[in-house]
Amino acid sequence: MREVVIAGIGSTPFGRHAGTPIEQLAVRAAAEALIDSGLPRERIGAVYLGNFVSGPLNGKEVLAGIVADQLGLPNVPCTKVEGACASGGIAFRHAWLAVASGQCDAALVVGVETMTHAPTSQTTAALNCAMDNTNDGPSGLTFPGLFGLAWRQHAQRHGTTRAQVSAVVRKNKAAGLRNPLAQMGADLTDEQIAASAAICDPLQLFDCCPTSDGAAAVVVVARDCARGLPRLPVDVLATVQTRGASRIAGHPDLCSFDATVSAARQAFAMSGLAPSDVDVVELHDCFSIAEIIDGEDLGLMPRGHGGGWAAEGRTGIGGDVAINPSGGLLAKGHPVGATGVGQLYEVVRQLRGDHPNPVPDAAIGLTHNLGGTGVACTVTLLRRGDA
Amino acid sequence: MREVVIAGIGSTPFGRHAGTPIEQLAVRAAAEALIDSGLPRERIGAVYLGNFVSGPLNGKEVLAGIVADQLGLPNVPCTKVEGACASGGIAFRHAWLAVASGQCDAALVVGVETMTHAPTSQTTAALNCAMDNTNDGPSGLTFPGLFGLAWRQHAQRHGTTRAQVSAVVRKNKAAGLRNPLAQMGADLTDEQIAASAAICDPLQLFDCCPTSDGAAAVVVVARDCARGLPRLPVDVLATVQTRGASRIAGHPDLCSFDATVSAARQAFAMSGLAPSDVDVVELHDCFSIAEIIDGEDLGLMPRGHGGGWAAEGRTGIGGDVAINPSGGLLAKGHPVGATGVGQLYEVVRQLRGDHPNPVPDAAIGLTHNLGGTGVACTVTLLRRGDA
Repeated sequence: MREVVIAGIGSTPFGRHAGTPIEQLAVRAAAEALIDSGLPRERIGAVYLGNFVSGPLNGKEVLAGIVADQLGLPNVPCTKVEGACASGGIAFRHAWLAVASGQCDAALVVGVETMTHAPTSQTTAALNCAMDNTNDGPSGLTFPGLFGLAWRQHAQRHGTTRAQVSAVVRKNKAAGLRNPLAQMGADLTDEQIAASAAICDPLQLFDCCPTSDGAAAVVVVARDCARGLPRLPVDVLATVQTRGASRIAGHPDLCSFDATVSAARQAFAMSGLAPSDVDVVELHDCFSIAEIIDGEDLGLMPRGHGGGWAAEGRTGIGGDVAINPSGGLLAKGHPVGATGVGQLYEVVRQLRGDHPNPVPDAAIGLTHNLGGTGVACTVTLLRRGDA
Repeated sequence: MREVVIAGIGSTPFGRHAGTPIEQLAVRAAAEALIDSGLPRERIGAVYLGNFVSGPLNGKEVLAGIVADQLGLPNVPCTKVEGACASGGIAFRHAWLAVASGQCDAALVVGVETMTHAPTSQTTAALNCAMDNTNDGPSGLTFPGLFGLAWRQHAQRHGTTRAQVSAVVRKNKAAGLRNPLAQMGADLTDEQIAASAAICDPLQLFDCCPTSDGAAAVVVVARDCARGLPRLPVDVLATVQTRGASRIAGHPDLCSFDATVSAARQAFAMSGLAPSDVDVVELHDCFSIAEIIDGEDLGLMPRGHGGGWAAEGRTGIGGDVAINPSGGLLAKGHPVGATGVGQLYEVVRQLRGDHPNPVPDAAIGLTHNLGGTGVACTVTLLRRGDA
């Protein structure tokens, strides 16, 4: 397999784009990434688009081909991939595979979703397409329900406290304030978080990511074909996609997602790195407790220490590892199909040294994108090109 | 890239499966393919599932992971791909890429759709997700509208007659009568076809494929890993995925789909074969006129001769090239996401010599899967393993 780099990135703001057709958001982010890369359009040999619920919420599919056509890209394979909230990460992995295997020298990855135009009941129904409704439906669980249970179990086993979880919320919401692409940054106190509306006990409003629209894009290129391009290339050291249990009852442990554990182990093995080598992480904090569980699953801190590390500032900028300096899903937003690609966008900016919340001297970055009830996961390890 | 073979196939009947959850149909076809291959489940290293409208029509997504979990397949990348009616062909191409590139030694491909449970208005709306509704919507065209226009243009330019188009319908409906997996075979006269209900002039009812449920699956394996397996392997000589114009107005010519022309040219170039080498073809006859256009686009007969060849029996078994001896979409049915995989199932049975409508001594087969208004296409060339 050939070595692959990220040569260009683009993103719309995450937030409300009511009235903008979904393909227009995708085209905007993709055009920015193409320009950023300096690569002529004719060099793009494949397009992968990650999207989850454009069918039910927009009545639109075949988005990969429509977007490529509107961008004036040549006649190349254009594929939409879907893996619920991991759709963007899966799209990236397949673009990497197309380039690494020599099918083409450069590929465009786009992630996109629009959701805010739909009534909450319709959005909730669409998001629940990511659950195994036949088997898990009778439990009455929704995604907040699942993560509420996970919190309870984590608290019981590891003594995780409301104050520790609130430290995650404060960190990410504050980071969002300084990220111009973020949907809802805020300077919050523990009291404000604890007093926000109850969603699904023990989750309060500020523990949950918002409903979002947005698009992000990256251009991946074979390293040998990236000479002379204007931007510092970012090396793709590993990108791994895994499957976990599709039923909630199939998870041996709600305090861990085996798809994440497996993806992280494989990615570190492929790259020859250890979790302690990672400087900056964008991980899948769809709920505040998820950041704690994900961090432990990725091996960034010992099992059961996720809450403590957050409260002690060890996951902030200047700590042991900077987690979600973009604001994460909690503050930057979660336009589902765009999220995994948006994480790559953020980490590339960190490694290029031009992020609005910079992690000083960041050389190694990790992204983690989790789908459904843990049924799909991607983990990607990136390295600053001159590191 | 490594050489790849098809080692196992499975399929449900195409037709009405009202009340059967979509993932159960997929599991049934996939289990049959796995057993047919003789490969232990642990050897499967990737799963690709093609599906189009399970979101809007079933409220279910992440089907690739759910199906893999229910099959007891190991923790491997499970990806749903979507390219409207070409979803199944795209799923196959990605499984081929995973194996050919060495990512894994064997992969499972599943195509699945359920549609008959939904009211016609809802099914029509879901199918129209495959059009560029923002740009083509104002024209008022539906898929029958598009193919009705194509027929008119073909008739004007090439003198194609109702009798010639009816020859396609008679051939495919009769083939469906003898295929136990087919939804609606029939022994029809030209008069019955011409007198069937008007759908969209000049298309009558029998010119249109039905609404269908169904699933099909194939197991692909690296040739070096296929030794000792029970079935005659079928060689994958080429599998190509292309993009065409996403807008109807973007097509320079309604009598041809450039995505098909390009995919066929690339596939023949990759394989070193010519159209005249092909013995059996399963192509995308969503409407009767489409079989004529597709045959010309694939180079199976000279441009403008598709109608004449059908009327003269040159596309039947015993003719120059056997087209759609399964009954095609017109008679076998069109469970959208399953169609491309179902075509592979049919051609593999022909090359193994155990098809219910056998093409004698068939050694080279071709499948052609077209998505949306021609925005996506796959063409695959297969060879009998001992040929």
